[in-house]
Amino acid sequence: MKFVIERDRLVQAVNEVTRAISARTTIPILTGIKIVVNDEGVTLTGSDSDISIEAFIPLIENDEVIVEVESFGGIVLQSKYFGDIVRRLPEENVEIEVTSNYQTNISSGQASFTLNGLDPMEYPKLPEVTDGKTIKIPINVLKNIVRQTVFAVSAIEVRPVLTGVNWIIKENKLSAVATDSHRLALREIPLETDIDEEYNIVIPGKSLSELNKLLDDASESIEMTLANNQILFKLKDLLFYSRLLEGSYPDTSRLIPTDTKSELVINSKAFLQAIDRASLLARENRNNVIKLMTLENGQVEVSSNSPEVGNVSENVFSQSFTGEEIKISFNGKYMMDALRAFEGDDIQISFSGTMRPFVLRPKDAANPNEILQLITPVRTY
Amino acid sequence: MKFVIERDRLVQAVNEVTRAISARTTIPILTGIKIVVNDEGVTLTGSDSDISIEAFIPLIENDEVIVEVESFGGIVLQSKYFGDIVRRLPEENVEIEVTSNYQTNISSGQASFTLNGLDPMEYPKLPEVTDGKTIKIPINVLKNIVRQTVFAVSAIEVRPVLTGVNWIIKENKLSAVATDSHRLALREIPLETDIDEEYNIVIPGKSLSELNKLLDDASESIEMTLANNQILFKLKDLLFYSRLLEGSYPDTSRLIPTDTKSELVINSKAFLQAIDRASLLARENRNNVIKLMTLENGQVEVSSNSPEVGNVSENVFSQSFTGEEIKISFNGKYMMDALRAFEGDDIQISFSGTMRPFVLRPKDAANPNEILQLITPVRTY
Repeated sequence: MKFVIERDRLVQAVNEVTRAISARTTIPILTGIKIVVNDEGVTLTGSDSDISIEAFIPLIENDEVIVEVESFGGIVLQSKYFGDIVRRLPEENVEIEVTSNYQTNISSGQASFTLNGLDPMEYPKLPEVTDGKTIKIPINVLKNIVRQTVFAVSAIEVRPVLTGVNWIIKENKLSAVATDSHRLALREIPLETDIDEEYNIVIPGKSLSELNKLLDDASESIEMTLANNQILFKLKDLLFYSRLLEGSYPDTSRLIPTDTKSELVINSKAFLQAIDRASLLARENRNNVIKLMTLENGQVEVSSNSPEVGNVSENVFSQSFTGEEIKISFNGKYMMDALRAFEGDDIQISFSGTMRPFVLRPKDAANPNEILQLITPVRTY
Repeated sequence: MKFVIERDRLVQAVNEVTRAISARTTIPILTGIKIVVNDEGVTLTGSDSDISIEAFIPLIENDEVIVEVESFGGIVLQSKYFGDIVRRLPEENVEIEVTSNYQTNISSGQASFTLNGLDPMEYPKLPEVTDGKTIKIPINVLKNIVRQTVFAVSAIEVRPVLTGVNWIIKENKLSAVATDSHRLALREIPLETDIDEEYNIVIPGKSLSELNKLLDDASESIEMTLANNQILFKLKDLLFYSRLLEGSYPDTSRLIPTDTKSELVINSKAFLQAIDRASLLARENRNNVIKLMTLENGQVEVSSNSPEVGNVSENVFSQSFTGEEIKISFNGKYMMDALRAFEGDDIQISFSGTMRPFVLRPKDAANPNEILQLITPVRTY
């Protein structure tokens, strides 16, 4: 294997595939980046066996030569050294050559490195995801769905399936749900592609978070394919594979209360700022408890008390409040996570009693499941 | 105590004094910020007993009212809460009022906090530094002196005096020296103030690093005053006190070799980049060992070898090389620290043999002590 490549393109691809690589893997070869050169271009692969990322660099793009290949082949190089090396190379081009015994020369200008490589045949095969139906979705829509749900997955592994986000695709709709059993986040969007099949899958929250870091906020589409207990997200020169979680996700629809006793309409940004301030003292106590109480003049009082440190209270103007008076306590962090999903828009909070979960939705939402955030109160009052 | 103050000015002063505050102090009241209000303005103090910072906010500045005082007094408030609170307050102004039992109300717009405070009379007195001679120095010059020497202080406390930088002021010159006994950094500048007295002090490296973070790169002057085993740096509205280290600093002048056997002139930036690349593999071995070897064509070879990972070598063009051939090994981190002190300028490296310390200076330096970096080689060749 011997080729010359534009350093900046190589650095970009290395940065992309490195996102999948974990230093704590139990499979030593997975601490490396696999590099394969053929007559189409250079392919880099990184994987922690849950997530695999493949970045492709074509020989020629827009009539510009990016890679000049002298001989085909492959190698696996330690990602922590290879990445640091290519980022610091002095010239615009890099020559990479595998000599004997997987020894690899990396040279640029006057600088010349030799790294001990590994046999690329030893590198695990990527999952085959070819036979599934392909669904297209704009990247910025996908990023939003992930951002508005993934924070609510469970951080603990007691029920592994809850560490993922449940995606249900049916009737040309995608609905994504995450819950850690104290709060729930739900987002539903119409799909542009016609899908006959129904899918019900659970994608690890960590995979979705990594995917979101990798994607620019673009309006072009990404392709998703499902097969063999894997999901593949496909961009122009990038493949992102994630394993799916096994086990059936609980039916969350019956957790959402339908009997509203009071309703508060408020601006999510102003409310978020007040909750953020109240959380400054609330973080000292175990559940980050914040109290909410409706006042007579259409305001709500947000307060918190930490005996050691002090207390805080703030009145926030609501746009309207109807129904029974409310006095309720909740985890401030959950509320902030939920409010951020609404990006500053006006929201409607539906309460069905002091000890029943309450639900946040956009004000005047046409579809009640477009964005839904549910929070279970904390017992204090 | 009751006053209203511009939030942004308060936030700035809180950020400044917080630099001195350590969460790990053994004196509980020092985790707080002392606030004192009198007829001149508001004074905030933070301290870890080694470093103390005092920030002053005048009542009126440039005909603009910054503080409106209703009653004088003082309080000590937990810095970690007080800082977060004032940074997040909703309006431009903040009202602070001490009620009974050191309870303090902090309110802005609709938000109202109550913090449990402490008696300001319990807060340790700041050192008195009034009787010493005052020396003026431009802030950017001071920042450079610190930056070019402080990295070379010892990180271990075996010889406490070596964790500081030795400042010697005599004959209208300031010379700053730091050494951890493996390398040495020296910087000498002429002083504008006429100083009759001689001073020989050791300032903790940590104090100088914190001072540098606090100072903008301005050309105006800062005043330094020495007294009672303390140094005081005085800006317009800011006082920075540091305790001095006790014990006599070793005489480092005789460590600097005077018998040069070979001399290399090279650009510090190009050399730094090559050393940085070679260090990528060198960091695996214990002393970060990099080898330097002169070649016949006026180039020098920088190389490193880490049996597990691989090796690296790079030829760097020098501007000139005279004297005996050189083959020498050194700690790559020490070399990078030293090279950064020259800010990309051309330098001259004087060698007096493979096992003797070598010295870096600016090319054609008029004063041999203007900037001097000394490194002791590592035994490998």
